[in-house]
Amino acid sequence: MADVAIGVDFGGTKVLACAVDVSTGKVLGEGKTTTSSADGPDELMKRIYKVCKAAGKDAGIAVGDTVGIGVGIAGQVDAKRGLLVGTANLSRAVVDLPMADLLTKEFGVPAAIRNDVQIAAIGEARFGAGRNVEQFVCIFVGTGIGGAIVHNGELIPGFSGNAGEIGHTMVQVGGRICGCGGRGHLEAYASRTAITAALMGEMRRGRKTILRELLPDVDPVHPAGSGAIRSGILKKAVASGDAVTIGVIEEAGHYLGCGLASIVNFVNPQRIILGGGVIESVDLLFDVAEKTTRLEALAHAGDAVEIVRAKLGDYSGAVGAAVIVAEQQGIAA
Amino acid sequence: MADVAIGVDFGGTKVLACAVDVSTGKVLGEGKTTTSSADGPDELMKRIYKVCKAAGKDAGIAVGDTVGIGVGIAGQVDAKRGLLVGTANLSRAVVDLPMADLLTKEFGVPAAIRNDVQIAAIGEARFGAGRNVEQFVCIFVGTGIGGAIVHNGELIPGFSGNAGEIGHTMVQVGGRICGCGGRGHLEAYASRTAITAALMGEMRRGRKTILRELLPDVDPVHPAGSGAIRSGILKKAVASGDAVTIGVIEEAGHYLGCGLASIVNFVNPQRIILGGGVIESVDLLFDVAEKTTRLEALAHAGDAVEIVRAKLGDYSGAVGAAVIVAEQQGIAA
Repeated sequence: MADVAIGVDFGGTKVLACAVDVSTGKVLGEGKTTTSSADGPDELMKRIYKVCKAAGKDAGIAVGDTVGIGVGIAGQVDAKRGLLVGTANLSRAVVDLPMADLLTKEFGVPAAIRNDVQIAAIGEARFGAGRNVEQFVCIFVGTGIGGAIVHNGELIPGFSGNAGEIGHTMVQVGGRICGCGGRGHLEAYASRTAITAALMGEMRRGRKTILRELLPDVDPVHPAGSGAIRSGILKKAVASGDAVTIGVIEEAGHYLGCGLASIVNFVNPQRIILGGGVIESVDLLFDVAEKTTRLEALAHAGDAVEIVRAKLGDYSGAVGAAVIVAEQQGIAA
Repeated sequence: MADVAIGVDFGGTKVLACAVDVSTGKVLGEGKTTTSSADGPDELMKRIYKVCKAAGKDAGIAVGDTVGIGVGIAGQVDAKRGLLVGTANLSRAVVDLPMADLLTKEFGVPAAIRNDVQIAAIGEARFGAGRNVEQFVCIFVGTGIGGAIVHNGELIPGFSGNAGEIGHTMVQVGGRICGCGGRGHLEAYASRTAITAALMGEMRRGRKTILRELLPDVDPVHPAGSGAIRSGILKKAVASGDAVTIGVIEEAGHYLGCGLASIVNFVNPQRIILGGGVIESVDLLFDVAEKTTRLEALAHAGDAVEIVRAKLGDYSGAVGAAVIVAEQQGIAA
């Protein structure tokens, strides 16, 4: 029988677990649930146990018979000690949670935990758009913008393990305030959160847009509680020819391309892999970003770089998480 | 006798050659001359032969008895074939100049050629502020802004050999036009050229500044022919308390810090080494850039990074060039 590991991708709105054949990257079974920002440590772990079991069941394998469980989560992670140090999306009660130890106690198999962007990059490196590419940069556009640098199949960790924060590179000195508190960061111009803020502004100042129909319950004056506009809605609005949404997406794509051009000039990567919900749903964002990157980068590096979409879609994180725990056990893809 | 190599640093205004003890980095002798943008290939090579001989003579060694000659030059270089592909500072007649072969023919020793920033980074890595540092980024502020990423003592070349162009990362989308033709690049805000342009502007609009006395021959309405203001003049103006110069340097330092913060967030280096004429002469630029970097970078990576000055000063390029040709011959520092 093939080696199977469970990979868990713990996102801002949902948790996806997959039972993955780690020699091929094939997803054999999956389990899904929503997240709740009200979760304390116990509820959080129960949620993860549940999706792990569901993924195993779907694949016809008990979690205890797998190679192990890998978890990717948006937040600060201490990979060595298997700790979730903290995360902006969850209750403040979730601090220094020994997630790997708890999973091992529950299922009797090894466990590993990593940052969500890093596991997605590893997923793409082993089985996706980064396969056999010597050097690439992965960028995921979602609620925020995350990134990772991969060289010879391995993540470049940086000196203190924090490399890849392209969302917090500065594209506009003194510009928009970012979720992190800084100013002018790429994430404040090109993330789903930034796109939402711009669209709410357009609605407040009375511009005509189909979003009023697509989002009947959103109050643009007090949009905070509504969260970021879902990628599917953005896709619909663009497809309908909505000038307001198209303008905002083009602006975001332009900024994204300018940020990518800087990366091209500084790192000179062979390939840039763009992924995440907004990129997958809204072709216009990818297209404008690609065009701008080539236009704004220095000729030599800009001509050389390949700009492609992530291949594993929603599964890059879960597959990468499964790969990480398998490789930790000495099982190579 | 110690192994001696000749290192040549071919800059925008001068050529410096050093005879370097490649086991210690010690400069045993040197030769210097000016450059001329009117030089064709023959004049250019004669200039280099002359400084090489002068450096050897000063050290009491014939160039033909050295390990070899390394050359660093601002421009596009084909290191493998030893070609100077082209350079913005010299005559357009200088294209695909087989510099390494010509040097070997003249002196009968091996020769190597590299980009000026790359050799300076290698100089700092072996004998300067990058010694025994696992991972660092070097940034040189001069006429332009160049950079290099060094990992375990080796340059990170990038996919097509062009990594490190921090001067052409975008800090202001849609901003000032850069020498390269792009917009909003760091170099258009924080290089000596950018500082000069801002100061000429201040003079044109009639602000009081000591620069009118320090630069009696400069016409701020037609400043192009005058070139960039020399670092020594900037130093004098700052030391005199000149509010206009201080304001412009602070602005440049702020932009430089914002660019560095982006690098800190994306690459998470252990150390940043700042060098080049303006940094060496004008402490204020370094101080504002350091403070801004720490303020604008994400907390974890920003706290971790060390920000220091280059140690070899004017000699980092020549020493690095000597090291490169020696290492090419299998002689390690």
